[in-house]
Amino acid sequence: MPLYPFLFEEAVRRALAEDLGRGDATTDAIVSPEDRATARIIARVPGRIAGIDVAGYAFCCLDPQLNYEVRLQDGKDAAAGETLAIIQGAARPMLSAERTALNFLAGLCGIATATRDIAALIAAYPARVVCTRKTTPGLRVLEKYAVRAGGGSNHRFGLDDALLIKDNHIVVAGGVSEAIQRARRRAGHMVKIEVEVDTLAQLELALKEKIDAVLLDNMPVPMLTEAVRMVNKRVITEASGGISPQTAESIAATGVDLLSIGWITHSAPALDLSLDFSFKL
Amino acid sequence: MPLYPFLFEEAVRRALAEDLGRGDATTDAIVSPEDRATARIIARVPGRIAGIDVAGYAFCCLDPQLNYEVRLQDGKDAAAGETLAIIQGAARPMLSAERTALNFLAGLCGIATATRDIAALIAAYPARVVCTRKTTPGLRVLEKYAVRAGGGSNHRFGLDDALLIKDNHIVVAGGVSEAIQRARRRAGHMVKIEVEVDTLAQLELALKEKIDAVLLDNMPVPMLTEAVRMVNKRVITEASGGISPQTAESIAATGVDLLSIGWITHSAPALDLSLDFSFKL
Amino acid sequence: MPLYPFLFEEAVRRALAEDLGRGDATTDAIVSPEDRATARIIARVPGRIAGIDVAGYAFCCLDPQLNYEVRLQDGKDAAAGETLAIIQGAARPMLSAERTALNFLAGLCGIATATRDIAALIAAYPARVVCTRKTTPGLRVLEKYAVRAGGGSNHRFGLDDALLIKDNHIVVAGGVSEAIQRARRRAGHMVKIEVEVDTLAQLELALKEKIDAVLLDNMPVPMLTEAVRMVNKRVITEASGGISPQTAESIAATGVDLLSIGWITHSAPALDLSLDFSFKL
Amino acid sequence: MPLYPFLFEEAVRRALAEDLGRGDATTDAIVSPEDRATARIIARVPGRIAGIDVAGYAFCCLDPQLNYEVRLQDGKDAAAGETLAIIQGAARPMLSAERTALNFLAGLCGIATATRDIAALIAAYPARVVCTRKTTPGLRVLEKYAVRAGGGSNHRFGLDDALLIKDNHIVVAGGVSEAIQRARRRAGHMVKIEVEVDTLAQLELALKEKIDAVLLDNMPVPMLTEAVRMVNKRVITEASGGISPQTAESIAATGVDLLSIGWITHSAPALDLSLDFSFKL
Amino acid sequence: MPLYPFLFEEAVRRALAEDLGRGDATTDAIVSPEDRATARIIARVPGRIAGIDVAGYAFCCLDPQLNYEVRLQDGKDAAAGETLAIIQGAARPMLSAERTALNFLAGLCGIATATRDIAALIAAYPARVVCTRKTTPGLRVLEKYAVRAGGGSNHRFGLDDALLIKDNHIVVAGGVSEAIQRARRRAGHMVKIEVEVDTLAQLELALKEKIDAVLLDNMPVPMLTEAVRMVNKRVITEASGGISPQTAESIAATGVDLLSIGWITHSAPALDLSLDFSFKL
Amino acid sequence: MPLYPFLFEEAVRRALAEDLGRGDATTDAIVSPEDRATARIIARVPGRIAGIDVAGYAFCCLDPQLNYEVRLQDGKDAAAGETLAIIQGAARPMLSAERTALNFLAGLCGIATATRDIAALIAAYPARVVCTRKTTPGLRVLEKYAVRAGGGSNHRFGLDDALLIKDNHIVVAGGVSEAIQRARRRAGHMVKIEVEVDTLAQLELALKEKIDAVLLDNMPVPMLTEAVRMVNKRVITEASGGISPQTAESIAATGVDLLSIGWITHSAPALDLSLDFSFKL
Repeated sequence: MPLYPFLFEEAVRRALAEDLGRGDATTDAIVSPEDRATARIIARVPGRIAGIDVAGYAFCCLDPQLNYEVRLQDGKDAAAGETLAIIQGAARPMLSAERTALNFLAGLCGIATATRDIAALIAAYPARVVCTRKTTPGLRVLEKYAVRAGGGSNHRFGLDDALLIKDNHIVVAGGVSEAIQRARRRAGHMVKIEVEVDTLAQLELALKEKIDAVLLDNMPVPMLTEAVRMVNKRVITEASGGISPQTAESIAATGVDLLSIGWITHSAPALDLSLDFSFKL
Repeated sequence: MPLYPFLFEEAVRRALAEDLGRGDATTDAIVSPEDRATARIIARVPGRIAGIDVAGYAFCCLDPQLNYEVRLQDGKDAAAGETLAIIQGAARPMLSAERTALNFLAGLCGIATATRDIAALIAAYPARVVCTRKTTPGLRVLEKYAVRAGGGSNHRFGLDDALLIKDNHIVVAGGVSEAIQRARRRAGHMVKIEVEVDTLAQLELALKEKIDAVLLDNMPVPMLTEAVRMVNKRVITEASGGISPQTAESIAATGVDLLSIGWITHSAPALDLSLDFSFKL
Repeated sequence: MPLYPFLFEEAVRRALAEDLGRGDATTDAIVSPEDRATARIIARVPGRIAGIDVAGYAFCCLDPQLNYEVRLQDGKDAAAGETLAIIQGAARPMLSAERTALNFLAGLCGIATATRDIAALIAAYPARVVCTRKTTPGLRVLEKYAVRAGGGSNHRFGLDDALLIKDNHIVVAGGVSEAIQRARRRAGHMVKIEVEVDTLAQLELALKEKIDAVLLDNMPVPMLTEAVRMVNKRVITEASGGISPQTAESIAATGVDLLSIGWITHSAPALDLSLDFSFKL
Repeated sequence: MPLYPFLFEEAVRRALAEDLGRGDATTDAIVSPEDRATARIIARVPGRIAGIDVAGYAFCCLDPQLNYEVRLQDGKDAAAGETLAIIQGAARPMLSAERTALNFLAGLCGIATATRDIAALIAAYPARVVCTRKTTPGLRVLEKYAVRAGGGSNHRFGLDDALLIKDNHIVVAGGVSEAIQRARRRAGHMVKIEVEVDTLAQLELALKEKIDAVLLDNMPVPMLTEAVRMVNKRVITEASGGISPQTAESIAATGVDLLSIGWITHSAPALDLSLDFSFKL
Repeated sequence: MPLYPFLFEEAVRRALAEDLGRGDATTDAIVSPEDRATARIIARVPGRIAGIDVAGYAFCCLDPQLNYEVRLQDGKDAAAGETLAIIQGAARPMLSAERTALNFLAGLCGIATATRDIAALIAAYPARVVCTRKTTPGLRVLEKYAVRAGGGSNHRFGLDDALLIKDNHIVVAGGVSEAIQRARRRAGHMVKIEVEVDTLAQLELALKEKIDAVLLDNMPVPMLTEAVRMVNKRVITEASGGISPQTAESIAATGVDLLSIGWITHSAPALDLSLDFSFKL
Repeated sequence: MPLYPFLFEEAVRRALAEDLGRGDATTDAIVSPEDRATARIIARVPGRIAGIDVAGYAFCCLDPQLNYEVRLQDGKDAAAGETLAIIQGAARPMLSAERTALNFLAGLCGIATATRDIAALIAAYPARVVCTRKTTPGLRVLEKYAVRAGGGSNHRFGLDDALLIKDNHIVVAGGVSEAIQRARRRAGHMVKIEVEVDTLAQLELALKEKIDAVLLDNMPVPMLTEAVRMVNKRVITEASGGISPQTAESIAATGVDLLSIGWITHSAPALDLSLDFSFKL
């Protein structure tokens, strides 16, 4: 989805209130209302851009007179030292909104960059990177968007998106087959069903039912290879379980269709950004 | 501050709405309203606990009849495999709230654990770990709390907390001395003033003014050592700039009072937690 | 999804504020704080129940001391004159919450009843009733729930649920085939694709592509019969376009899998309910 | 009241979020950000317009660059096929906001049209159509506005508007006379008092007290005629109780001043509208 | 209206967040989580109570385990030194909620006391005290309630309550008579009409029209006396314009029905309250 | 802090909704949508301006087409009869927003004026006026801003701003010295500590510890004089306790650094403002 402003405006306002509290004591003491500045958002290290308009809104929410010019759109790659955007106008709101703007942007670029980098590692294989529901509470729409900006795909957005039968559902239902059959009876006509399996025995059972995808969870590479062979492209295969930049390539080499990686949203490091100012006083 | 429920209830409700969307399609299809379960939140790896009541609220918000028993309070250390809390009651809301509860808890425990681990690395030195304003937008109160649960201290909560004169303020004011003097004239009587300096020359100027602390930014270890010597305990010294678990000890060894580490909030990996179920069907 | 209270609490509070404004002038003038009452929610006409807990929350939100006893759960059928719930306690909040409670309940029961009645009309055929996105703004989760309580199924909850390629998408893409191919390239792996077609020629094109369902829009019964024959159960068939209680059976008789009926949510009459009081003064 | 935008903006944003969820999967897959369109909101059947600015806000909230030109203002009548408004700009937000915009507009036009049509049925009599508090929870301000656009009048907006003594208040007070006297003692000096009566005996008692209006509830036409005669224009007379387009004229013919009709807000069918697109690709 | 909790809960939570910010630094540093206390809300000076439950919610919102016992209900008079309520439980939340609870309670008791005192000054006359719309933004429901607790009556709650034709409306309409006639044509059947007049000539015109009340604005006492005589009880008379405790009696002596006093809500001094603690450590 | 609009927009919208309710019945009945007006906000008495942009937002929120021209900025002094701002445009929204705009502006100007007047009374002494946390719930940011506009300074914004050890904290800790020592051990490095003392004996103990300021509470002038002498400028001295315009000068004459005055926010009378209209009909 395009990042319509109404999707993030409230989150940005909440974050500004959180950071400004009762005011920017330092800036108000030192900077005059008349001081003007030009500031550049710079990538200190190379990375993939996501959230450039979110940062812009943080500045313009404080002062709608600020001019915010985007130089690198979401989905583009920044070289080290490259300028992402230029802000011009009153110095005070620029300084006061800086941290909020960068907190959003650095986090989202971090996710996009991590996604891009893993995608590059597995570029030789057909597998794609997908994200999970392990996102920052309250920011899922933004983080899923950042994954797409990084070249990844979104798995389920939430519990309502598709049926993903997990280990606990299988226990409750009393077995893989019964769980799938129950799901099939209750699922809407536009809903796909995926089953999480831990063993090849479970996989065998699952493949006897009418499913759309299997999540092969925490399988060692040889077992995963065998699982992919067993599926033989009849349904989509997805590998999950602690996949990291270190392990991504060996997993992709098994031939799975998807690598489901929680790490890119819950633990990817923020991108190192800075805001460089020049002032007219 | 104690984590009064009114501080996180809205954030948890927002996150539940985000994850549940129009419902947990899988659980509703497979699990009956009558099914009962006991679930344990387990630490898969060792870590420091923070946010255990936040996770509890996620479960009880969906179903106030659930019984949530805390086994390890915030601030305690979990061994690998140890149980943090036990939930008992209807199986459906437990399964549906699982991800939201764990997203909060894993993130906060990750911050507490990272803080604890760095604090341990520098335990031989007087320096303390402090966090920054580089926190997840909207969750700062929770993340600052997690830092304290990890044994760290909180630097400024927001821009209104104290005066921290940074490089750009110095540029606007036309120099270190002028910036401090302006701040001193405008600051409230209960407000302390800290100055960020990059060079020993700046430090020398700052020490001629009436300040409470200096932020020694991005200084190599030898320069930092010299800076601490120059300050000679007249004001508080704080080192900042890309400090990581790898560099923390060498920086603490310079004798600075505080290590200011953005990494513990913006990039610490989430703690690996699981929710283990047993069912009565 | 079970109707977790956090899903409707805010909507009920908003509605109470809307109706009470600055107070219930009549009740406050006439009824004393000590007056007690027993009230029964009665169905004046037969109907299917949905939203009984929503009504209960409206009463208990005003006065948590009220006792609200449900007699007919959601999904049950009420005979004319049957009691749905009994409320006991202070008379004032009961009188003041009455209209808000009944506005929710009558609307949701109206939807459930309309759904049930159409489902009964087509019971001899395999077709199921599904609802659309033509719901009251702000109340979709409740209204979709009411459709399920009436024995219907939910089509897409929103634009994010599945791909439904409509006439305008086909125009933009330059044809049925191209639209489906574009969608197929961009859709997530757990997402199904449905295409809306108006003519048998369009249907023929659609069936050459990889789709999951077809929406046969505004087709006269003979054309619909032919369309169902052409599809021959390869994909799911859904009829839509002004379907009403009058036309439902003839459409179901064509053999389509689904009847998509906006009328049950946007125009079904509310169920006629009353709140009958007896007082202890 | 004029429909000031701040009265509906929040409701529209809530509805957009509800429909878009995590994005318009179909439009995003098929329509390019560069595609432009012109769309017309068309009345498929004749009707009275209400809420044209609400629909406009739904479009412009997604994309403030869209041009929204109103052709038929609220309160005007549309012929079948007539254009209500024209939207020009990017195709994506137009397609994504379509359902939300039409859900509001079709519902409000439905209310306005139903009101207009009943008003026309009774045009030969002095009686006016008034609405009740049986409105959609959360949308009362909009729906009351639609009634006025349809040529009706608003009865009480909420419980705080005026004193309307209903059957249950009479029971609590121990009789019609006592209820009115209690109300008279407690009512503010700018508040009028109306009493609901079911029988001519009750009416006789009510007319002995100082009241401003009587609500003649569920009376058969002959009884109503007699009631109007008894009142003899001393106070305002209002008929209520299941009044429909079928019964309105006979009731108006009794000479009552007002017809109070819940049906126009709780059960009027939505107006059949469409959004017709032409694209520049 | 009874002060239903849902009417003030949000305002109290907002105020707690405003005062606590990121925590009660002093209490958290000095008071242990185990310390217990008993605190009494004491009136330092005599006054009328209003808002005792609002204060209670401030304490219990922070810690639902606190026991809050009301000793003097709203509408009662406190002697100097008298206890209004007793709170028992953990010392920390009591100390942290103190200021928020007292800010609400002192303000509302101040309004109730000012109202009571003016009512006492004019007790020998038939006139009643009414409040205006000059209330604290966001707290009107609470402040109007406090006026009633003080023995006053509420004039219009808002602009939608009744028609009050003021000087500017008269100018727009082109005269008193025309303004009233326009209003009469447009007003709902349950709405009363009051006209503000500054001169006896205006009053004479107003009395020729069908109105319910006159607001005699800023008239000196002799003119007011004459105005009351002219009205001769045909409509309600209301005096307004800078009425204070100093001038109230002489105005009431003119025989007007109502004294409309903005001062009791916009400028009444807060009641002097204290919270006295005894601790178990 | 500059009064960024995002800080007050929500409060203004809430207040407008509170006053307008379901509409301005009088204005809508009498004033036509085409009527135009020019209105001037006039100070009826001299005063200090604060909140001029808040009033402007109230008008423009109802109708963004209104032209709002500020004549006297916040912090300036108005003579009696002077114009603060001029509004031009449609007459309806101007009349409907009038009370909300003036309620905000009159309250804030009242605070600024009270602050200015007390500051003037003590201008011959070094002491400064500071405000307290006794502010209107929900409006603290605005009221603290008004104090600054009046020439005062802000004490703590909230409980999280600095450590202020009050009588109850001393009781819990078991004495002045112990309380300070506990606070010192727990306080962050950028936090100052102030102690409230009632007696010279307490003051003597406090001065033996490491503190930044003392709050001399409710001391008679001779005791205060002695206290200031004892402190001898080693720490900041602050007088508090029922300080009013009547007592301010004698207290300032003792040589204290700060006068802490709750009265300026909790009980200062609103400034008398009017909105004068001229119409083009």
